[in-house]
Amino acid sequence: MAKQFVSMRNLKFMLFELFDVEALTKYPYFQEHSREIFDMVLETGLKMGTDLLYPCFAEMDRNPPQFVDGQVKVHPMVRPLMKACGEGGWIGAHAPYERGGQQIPMMIMTAFRFIFAAANYSASVFPFLTSGAAHLIESFGSEQLKETYVPRLFSGEWQGTMALTEPQAGSSLTDIQTTAEPTQHAFYKMKGQKIFISAADHDGVDNVVNLLLARIKGAPPGVKGISLFVVPKRRFNGKGDLEDNDVTTATIYHKLGYRGSPITQLSLGDNDDCRGWLVGEPHSGLRYMFQLMNEARVDVGMGAAAIASAAYYASLEYTKERPQGRKLTSKDPTQPQIPIIEHADVKRMLLFQRAIVEGSISLLFQCAKYMDLLTVLESGEEKERCELLLDLLTPVAKTYPSEMGILSVSAGLQCLGGYGYCDEFPLEQYYRDARIHPIHEGTTGIQGMDLLGRKVVMKGGKAFQLFLEEVQRTIQEATEIQRLAPQGQALREAIDKLRHVTGHLTGIALEGKIELFLADATLYLELFSIIAVAWQWLLQATALEKALRGAPPEADATFYMGKLYAFRFFFAYELPKIEGLARRLTQSDGLTLEMNEALFAD
Amino acid sequence: MAKQFVSMRNLKFMLFELFDVEALTKYPYFQEHSREIFDMVLETGLKMGTDLLYPCFAEMDRNPPQFVDGQVKVHPMVRPLMKACGEGGWIGAHAPYERGGQQIPMMIMTAFRFIFAAANYSASVFPFLTSGAAHLIESFGSEQLKETYVPRLFSGEWQGTMALTEPQAGSSLTDIQTTAEPTQHAFYKMKGQKIFISAADHDGVDNVVNLLLARIKGAPPGVKGISLFVVPKRRFNGKGDLEDNDVTTATIYHKLGYRGSPITQLSLGDNDDCRGWLVGEPHSGLRYMFQLMNEARVDVGMGAAAIASAAYYASLEYTKERPQGRKLTSKDPTQPQIPIIEHADVKRMLLFQRAIVEGSISLLFQCAKYMDLLTVLESGEEKERCELLLDLLTPVAKTYPSEMGILSVSAGLQCLGGYGYCDEFPLEQYYRDARIHPIHEGTTGIQGMDLLGRKVVMKGGKAFQLFLEEVQRTIQEATEIQRLAPQGQALREAIDKLRHVTGHLTGIALEGKIELFLADATLYLELFSIIAVAWQWLLQATALEKALRGAPPEADATFYMGKLYAFRFFFAYELPKIEGLARRLTQSDGLTLEMNEALFAD
Repeated sequence: MAKQFVSMRNLKFMLFELFDVEALTKYPYFQEHSREIFDMVLETGLKMGTDLLYPCFAEMDRNPPQFVDGQVKVHPMVRPLMKACGEGGWIGAHAPYERGGQQIPMMIMTAFRFIFAAANYSASVFPFLTSGAAHLIESFGSEQLKETYVPRLFSGEWQGTMALTEPQAGSSLTDIQTTAEPTQHAFYKMKGQKIFISAADHDGVDNVVNLLLARIKGAPPGVKGISLFVVPKRRFNGKGDLEDNDVTTATIYHKLGYRGSPITQLSLGDNDDCRGWLVGEPHSGLRYMFQLMNEARVDVGMGAAAIASAAYYASLEYTKERPQGRKLTSKDPTQPQIPIIEHADVKRMLLFQRAIVEGSISLLFQCAKYMDLLTVLESGEEKERCELLLDLLTPVAKTYPSEMGILSVSAGLQCLGGYGYCDEFPLEQYYRDARIHPIHEGTTGIQGMDLLGRKVVMKGGKAFQLFLEEVQRTIQEATEIQRLAPQGQALREAIDKLRHVTGHLTGIALEGKIELFLADATLYLELFSIIAVAWQWLLQATALEKALRGAPPEADATFYMGKLYAFRFFFAYELPKIEGLARRLTQSDGLTLEMNEALFAD
Repeated sequence: MAKQFVSMRNLKFMLFELFDVEALTKYPYFQEHSREIFDMVLETGLKMGTDLLYPCFAEMDRNPPQFVDGQVKVHPMVRPLMKACGEGGWIGAHAPYERGGQQIPMMIMTAFRFIFAAANYSASVFPFLTSGAAHLIESFGSEQLKETYVPRLFSGEWQGTMALTEPQAGSSLTDIQTTAEPTQHAFYKMKGQKIFISAADHDGVDNVVNLLLARIKGAPPGVKGISLFVVPKRRFNGKGDLEDNDVTTATIYHKLGYRGSPITQLSLGDNDDCRGWLVGEPHSGLRYMFQLMNEARVDVGMGAAAIASAAYYASLEYTKERPQGRKLTSKDPTQPQIPIIEHADVKRMLLFQRAIVEGSISLLFQCAKYMDLLTVLESGEEKERCELLLDLLTPVAKTYPSEMGILSVSAGLQCLGGYGYCDEFPLEQYYRDARIHPIHEGTTGIQGMDLLGRKVVMKGGKAFQLFLEEVQRTIQEATEIQRLAPQGQALREAIDKLRHVTGHLTGIALEGKIELFLADATLYLELFSIIAVAWQWLLQATALEKALRGAPPEADATFYMGKLYAFRFFFAYELPKIEGLARRLTQSDGLTLEMNEALFAD
């Protein structure tokens, strides 16, 4: 085990120096909070992460959930974890006081969750999936649903899930077939199959509450006929006792990584006795679910960056301790070997990781800040701005850490050479765990279509314009600092390129060539993401340079200067990747559209 | 299990249409061969791959080698596999007749091995490591060593290995410490530790022969004091029986993938009774070993491309069968779903894989062709040309398939969505298996330094000049075909860029700034590799266009046209990546050199 899995110093930089979370306390909603409380939350997160989650990191992988006699058994730490998270108020921490929450800003909870996910991603899923499910009931459920479910979810006694996917309809929610038949009672009778549902059955809790998409009998076809239901694994009978709700776990999946968390296949209503309770209005389920899905997407990006963080620190520790080889300028074999961190290529791999991890974290906190502002702002122009920017950045915040996290962890593994490939070091597990993120909560391909096909063009491109304005404002501030001028100029050219590419593609859309417009949406997402993260790095660099002017204590100065190298690295090694992407994106030759299945023969 | 793991059609295209292996039969050395014999070899390879190796692919992963009572037990298929390879003559197939070989061209054996590796990479290592070890003894060993070892290695009764790495000297061979003490007999007494040695102990053979680097007592420090030894696990006693040679297996490694093959840690001379026999001259070990290492490097590239091939066909099969979603232009949910291969982004991921796999294969056959020509050519200009080009391309042929193979397999996994992450499909295993290749036989970082620091500059840049000439010749031929003009032009610009970058970097070397010169050698390798594979694709495209002019049968025409899409894909999506790389490589700001360890704090 490596000593470190997260940089608290960097999280505090994000919260208190870059995004100024304390400023939120001027709003009535957050007024009871303070820097002291925020620090206490972070300390508790680190303590729980260190004492409770991190020690089980490898163990939960080596001893994955077992499916025994139709029941899922998870690692014994899950129950105390859920209990501790419930008792500490961490599951409902972001919720309003009147619902039993603590009204803690999302920025702070993002840091808290990040620590958990870096310590042990699989374990972190149990409490925070529950948060999301509870939040959905809170937002759209009836008072009775709220009273029945939210307290038991917040307390960690019950697990929450999101149940969307079906065997015949993976990413295609249009094709959901699970049915809900109205009864004379308050409930519907549910029938269907759900696959790939995280944590929908386990012995670390007393019950599971599935937030589940289904189709009321007679509903219109397609997404317009999808409704949202609460379908618990066990339901209350008339006497206030829990009884079985005919939700059967058919199987669990054996996975490459992310093994501590059980991913289940559910069968509803095998005995014609599965009850579901409608959330909100009929046929509006997808709209409600999108609240949870959008939160979950940012959460996936956060989990991906957290795994990459843990991998980074594990590889950093190794490279400092492992002697091998000598400087190119002094090859004398009688001299002692040097730690491999002194080799330029190893430093390149470390800086690459740091640039990805800290760039991703910054983007995630940016999103969390928009979420917090949406909580406190009155409707108006500023609120709409936050809403649009969050919408626009959600596929980016999901995908960039997920896709680049894989490469970042891979670079970490490479730093260890042969040992990186062996399970006596944690890198191989991070490598396996990280691979889930471009898949769940909407694949990268789907995020690309969401960004280009929906977000960039919505409201006449308003979100996109707002994004460009934000980036330009950052460039403007940066240009006041002489040392940042080259990067400011590079980002200026990058957004010109982005504007040009976007104009080219939307021009194709206006001609009605929708397939051609979206054929390379995944590449567009990559291009956009690199620029978005470059923006975040320039934002960070500006804060860093300003902080350095203030003659900070040595430890801080070292931290700031180290980060400035990661910033320079990003602009030197990562930003130039947009050149090739922009070139491809402006070709629009329809190559992949033309290629037909028959030509894949042989 | 997917039905297909390799395209025989494509291998035959490489051999008979692109690189014209039949032309070799005009040389006396290969004159007894013919197209019929070559076809027979390929058919046998496919039959053995299909019947013997492929069925054990997942099983060998799920039941990895066990270390029991100091002995390594491997899957029971290893013994019959070694026997079949020995009896069929496949282990020594490339060797001269007088050594019991069959003088089969490397091009043909590359195809044969490729089939094996695609069927089951772990299993393929046993026979072909043995080939390499035997070839080394053949090339540099005494007659007695040859007589003792080569026939038993060729027969598959004994396993061959290459034993270089030591605990304190992973990639730094300079620091090898295993000692060889001269005795009054023909043997030396060996003492030391070796780590990460593939297949150095297992029960699928009767003995193991380690080709091992060690230092004769009193030898000069550094690489100039390294000698090559044969150190068998069991040795002949005076009576012609085998007895223990004091080579102890200390442990085996538990790995991310490549699990069917045991990777061992060896301890030599624990009882002061380990004997080694010198190969060739003292202190020349590294030079000899480089023959095997260079072969092994090309072999690693081949194994990487083979895994990517298998992953490609598995994902292709899935995408043809899995219905999900609808065309963007017809979203009517009452219409049936379409197979996902019809989605542009899925076709992009498939074409990406095909472009990587078939581009890599082409480069590997190019190297094999140089090897064959080196076997038959008299010394002279043409032979030197082949030698220099093979030297130059070896790090490229090792690294490009290894690094891009990871991304290719990852794209294959992504095609399956959640199922790609589950072990009921083979993609997750390919993803784990593939990750070894950028590590073993010299990491990517080491290959980068080899290419830029050694190969590009050797003999006053002669190899590099010859490479440019080869590429230019290919461009010249391609420009005679109208449809290839854009790609010909793109490649022309690419080599101008390569020349410019190389000039810039060697200029820095001439100023004596060696660390700066090599700081981004890994990126240079990437740039060079993309161009080398673009060259191979243009070479292929020229042959394809010519073949299409001849009005081939429909199945051939479909195959050719499909390949032409992969060719266009490479130029449209992959070649533009050199833009960003070239930009970075000409900055030379010394960023990674400046960054010091202290700044990685926090």
